[in-house]
Amino acid sequence: MSNLPLEPEGCCSPLAREPLPAEQATELARAFKAIGDPVRLRLLSLIASHEGGEACVCDLTGAFDLTGPTISHHLKVLRESGLVTGERRGTWIYYRVRSATLARLSAVLEPAETPVVSV
Amino acid sequence: MSNLPLEPEGCCSPLAREPLPAEQATELARAFKAIGDPVRLRLLSLIASHEGGEACVCDLTGAFDLTGPTISHHLKVLRESGLVTGERRGTWIYYRVRSATLARLSAVLEPAETPVVSV
Repeated sequence: MSNLPLEPEGCCSPLAREPLPAEQATELARAFKAIGDPVRLRLLSLIASHEGGEACVCDLTGAFDLTGPTISHHLKVLRESGLVTGERRGTWIYYRVRSATLARLSAVLEPAETPVVSV
Repeated sequence: MSNLPLEPEGCCSPLAREPLPAEQATELARAFKAIGDPVRLRLLSLIASHEGGEACVCDLTGAFDLTGPTISHHLKVLRESGLVTGERRGTWIYYRVRSATLARLSAVLEPAETPVVSV
């Protein structure tokens, strides 16, 4: 079971709108720290963009010059910071991105002005 | 002068849409790591939401139980990762959030589905 560090519902308004309370900053910083690593950021992206929106370690190791246990360690960090969930089915744990967490992190970073880039 | 780690223009599509290339992941992870700290996240928020969109160390120290040099160190990290710019005017350096960087980080984290939270 993942932690749910970014509850409650409605948390958080954009940081550019008003000063972020210390407690929210602590929880959000934990999630940002988790993706403050290139391997974990790529893992998150690989899982989110994988067919069906889920992936197991077996789907992920090919993209890295890293061992299975190292990948598993990074996945554990992502799980513990509420960015992915993991569900065991047979031999493998299948990881899925928690869209609600991504949406909150994205919303917190929205700039005050109209964004100058389109995607 | 700040680094501009998130150029070129148009970088980056949401990580949930397609696997993030390794080089982009390295640059983005650097920025996420910079805000993966509660003090720096609050500093970013205080600057962005400050009157006129800018703030000097003199405006920021009151919110923390930290010394001026410690605050200045955190501001340097934010500057070096392209999240804020600093302009010296008289005694003080005035910091301003780089909205384009925030917009890019926000866009990268947009989930594939419709966000389940509104802000």
